[in-house]
Amino acid sequence: MAKIRLTEQEHLRRIAAVRAKIDEMGIDALYLVSRPSIFYLTGFSHISTERPLAVVVPLDGEITFMGPALEKEHIPLQTRLVPSIRNYLDYPGTRHPMKHFARFLKEMRLDGKTIGIDNPRGALSTWGYRGPGISDLVPRANFVEAHELIPSMRLTKSPEEIDLITESVKWGNLAITLLQRYVKPGEWDVEVATRASLEASERMRRTLGPGFEPPVSHLPTSAGFRGQVGPKSAVPHSISTDRPIKRGDVLGAGSGPNVGGYFSELERTMIAGRPNTKQRKYFEVMLEAQDAAFEAFKPGATCREVDMAANRVLRRRGCRSFIRHHTGHGIGLEEHEPPWLDVGDNTILRPGMVLSCEPGVYVPGLGGFRHSDTVLIKKDGAQILTHYPRDLESLTVA
Amino acid sequence: MAKIRLTEQEHLRRIAAVRAKIDEMGIDALYLVSRPSIFYLTGFSHISTERPLAVVVPLDGEITFMGPALEKEHIPLQTRLVPSIRNYLDYPGTRHPMKHFARFLKEMRLDGKTIGIDNPRGALSTWGYRGPGISDLVPRANFVEAHELIPSMRLTKSPEEIDLITESVKWGNLAITLLQRYVKPGEWDVEVATRASLEASERMRRTLGPGFEPPVSHLPTSAGFRGQVGPKSAVPHSISTDRPIKRGDVLGAGSGPNVGGYFSELERTMIAGRPNTKQRKYFEVMLEAQDAAFEAFKPGATCREVDMAANRVLRRRGCRSFIRHHTGHGIGLEEHEPPWLDVGDNTILRPGMVLSCEPGVYVPGLGGFRHSDTVLIKKDGAQILTHYPRDLESLTVA
Repeated sequence: MAKIRLTEQEHLRRIAAVRAKIDEMGIDALYLVSRPSIFYLTGFSHISTERPLAVVVPLDGEITFMGPALEKEHIPLQTRLVPSIRNYLDYPGTRHPMKHFARFLKEMRLDGKTIGIDNPRGALSTWGYRGPGISDLVPRANFVEAHELIPSMRLTKSPEEIDLITESVKWGNLAITLLQRYVKPGEWDVEVATRASLEASERMRRTLGPGFEPPVSHLPTSAGFRGQVGPKSAVPHSISTDRPIKRGDVLGAGSGPNVGGYFSELERTMIAGRPNTKQRKYFEVMLEAQDAAFEAFKPGATCREVDMAANRVLRRRGCRSFIRHHTGHGIGLEEHEPPWLDVGDNTILRPGMVLSCEPGVYVPGLGGFRHSDTVLIKKDGAQILTHYPRDLESLTVA
Repeated sequence: MAKIRLTEQEHLRRIAAVRAKIDEMGIDALYLVSRPSIFYLTGFSHISTERPLAVVVPLDGEITFMGPALEKEHIPLQTRLVPSIRNYLDYPGTRHPMKHFARFLKEMRLDGKTIGIDNPRGALSTWGYRGPGISDLVPRANFVEAHELIPSMRLTKSPEEIDLITESVKWGNLAITLLQRYVKPGEWDVEVATRASLEASERMRRTLGPGFEPPVSHLPTSAGFRGQVGPKSAVPHSISTDRPIKRGDVLGAGSGPNVGGYFSELERTMIAGRPNTKQRKYFEVMLEAQDAAFEAFKPGATCREVDMAANRVLRRRGCRSFIRHHTGHGIGLEEHEPPWLDVGDNTILRPGMVLSCEPGVYVPGLGGFRHSDTVLIKKDGAQILTHYPRDLESLTVA
C-alpha cells in the first residue's frame, strides 16, 4: 500500500530524540511556534493566523497546546500526542493571549525553569498580530534560543519521510503529464493548470483511497506555470500573466504535490511549438548545467561544490549574466528548506538529504530555462527521484 | 468599466502621505519588509521566500528595492515607482544578503541617518532564513520602530480600494453560486470546489478582459469548504476531510476572490438535504447573532460593541459553550487585518473601514454554523457589500 502519512511511532521517536536533546542542553521544556516544527513533532497541522499558538514539550509531562479556542476540537482529530489543550477565546481579547500563555506556563510549573524557544517573541507575526514578548511576561523563566533544534533534525530524512516524498513524486509526475497534455496556444496558463491539477488530484484521491486526508486545504497535487509564459518565463518568480499562451512561448511548468505533509519538486521548461535556434541553445546549456550538478551530488560533497559545478557550465557557455539564483534547496515539510545549493553554504551532503536541482538560464525578452528535479543523497551516491523526460523533443508541445 | 487595479496616482498619494508622516516623525527613510506594505505603497507584488527583500523609501531620493536577483526584471513589469533596484545574487551567498543591504544603505547615504523600520531584524523569517539584524550591521544608523505606519494607513479604505473590494464581492458571489449549484452528496469537497472556482475564474477573466493580471498566482476567484463537512464543519479552521459529502451534512462554504490585490469575504452555511431540528435551531441562532452584529455596525461604535452584540444573542440562546471565535476582522490587502471585532478591541468604527461579520455557533459532533459578510462603514451607517441569500431554505442543497 502506498505510504500516505507518518506513523505515530515516527512522531514518538522524534519526541524522544527532542527530549534527549533538550535534556543534554539543560532545557526543561521546548516552546515551539513554527508550524512545520509543530507538525514534524506532533502531526498537528493548522492554518497560521493572527492568533498566537504554541506547543510546549516539557522534558517530563504532557505535550501541551496553547492557542485559540478554534483549534480546540481540531487537535484530537489529528493526533493523540498533544493530550493537554489550553485555550484563550480569541485575539486580542480582554486579556492578551500572551498573558494567558504566561499563566499556562506557570500552571505547568515552568515559570522558574529554562525554556528553549524557537522564536524570540513567543509568537509569529502573522497578519496584524501585535503583542508583548513572552519572556517579559514570565520574567522568572530563563528563555534560551532553540530555533535550530527541530530544523537541524529535519536536514536528513528518515525512511518514512523518504517514502512520502517518493509517493509525492508520482503524483507530481502525473500532474505535469496532464499539464503538458492539455496546454496549447490560446489557453490561459492558470485555467489549463487548474484542469490538469483537478484531474491529477481526483485520480490521486481514488488511488490512495479511504484514509487519505491531506494536511493541506487545497488540491493535494497540482501543476502550473505561475505566469512563466513567453518573455515572462524569464522572471523566475513571476506571479501571473495578462495574456494567453502563444505559439513560440517558452513555458515554465512546475508541480507541487503534497503527501502526508511532504513536498517534492518537479519543474520542466516546455516550448509551445517548434523551438527556435536561441531557445534550443539556452535549453541545451541549462540541461548541461543540470547534468553537471547531478554529477556533483554525492555524500561528502558540499552544497557549495554542487552550485559551483552548475555555475562553471553556465559561465563557460557565456550565460553568466543570465543567472538569477543558485542551484537548489532542501525540500521536505517546506517547499524550500535548508541546506541551500549555494556557493555560500558549506554544508556537507549526507545520506537522507533531499534537495531540488534546478540551475536556470534567464534571457530577458526571450524566456527562462529551468528544470527542477528532486534528488536523494544515498550512502553510495545520489538518486534522482523525479523521472519526467528532460529532453527538448519530449517537452515541445503542439 | 470594472475597476481591476489601483491607479498609479493612488500609489503616488500614498507615497506622499508616507513621506509627510516620516518627515513629521523625524525619520529620513522608511525600510519595509512586509509584503502587503510594499504592495500598498508601490504596487510591487512578490512571493516571499527565504531570500531577504526590502523596499526603502527615503524622504528625498528614489524608492529603492533591495533583494534577490530573481526579482530584478519583475519589478519594472509591475510598477514605475521603484526606479532603483539593488540586488544580491542569492541567499545565503558568499556574502550574506544583510551585508549587501548594509552596503546599499551606505551607498544611499543613509548609514548616519534615522531609519524607520517595520521589522526589528530587517528581514522576514520565511522558510529557513537566518541572518544578523540590519541594525547590527549599520551601527551608525538610528533604527526606529515604524511597524504601525503603513498598517495604520490601511485601516480605512480609499474610494479606489472600496471599488476593488466591491468588484471582488461580485466574483465571490459567482463562485459561491456555482459551488452551491455543483455540490451534492458523494462529491469530495475540494474537487467540487475546484470545478466551481475554475468556472468562476474563467468567467471572471472573460468579463474583465485584457489587462486583467491578478497579483496572485492561483485562480483569481475561488470558493470551497476547506474540509468543513459534516461534524468537521464544527472545526472552524478545518483543513481537509477524509470522506465525501453525505446527505445531512452541515457544510461551511467560503469564497476567496482577489481583485487588484484586495479581498472580500463571503461565507455561507449550507445543509446537504432537509435540515433536522437541531440544525434548524443553531442556524437560526447564528442568523440572529449576525443580525444583531449588523445592527451594531455604525460610525462611532467600537469594535468591542459589535462583538458584544453578537455574543449577547449567542449567550441568551444558550450557545455560550459553542463560541470558538470573535465576530469578525478587518479585510483588504490581507484576508485578516486590523481592526478586530473583538471584546478586546476598542477601535472606533470610521467611514471607509471594511470588516467581515461572522459570528459562529460550533456544536461538536453536529456542525458549525457561520455566515460571513463583508461590511463597509459609511458616514451615515453601514453597507453590507455581499448579498448572497442568507436564509436556510435558500441554502438547503439537494
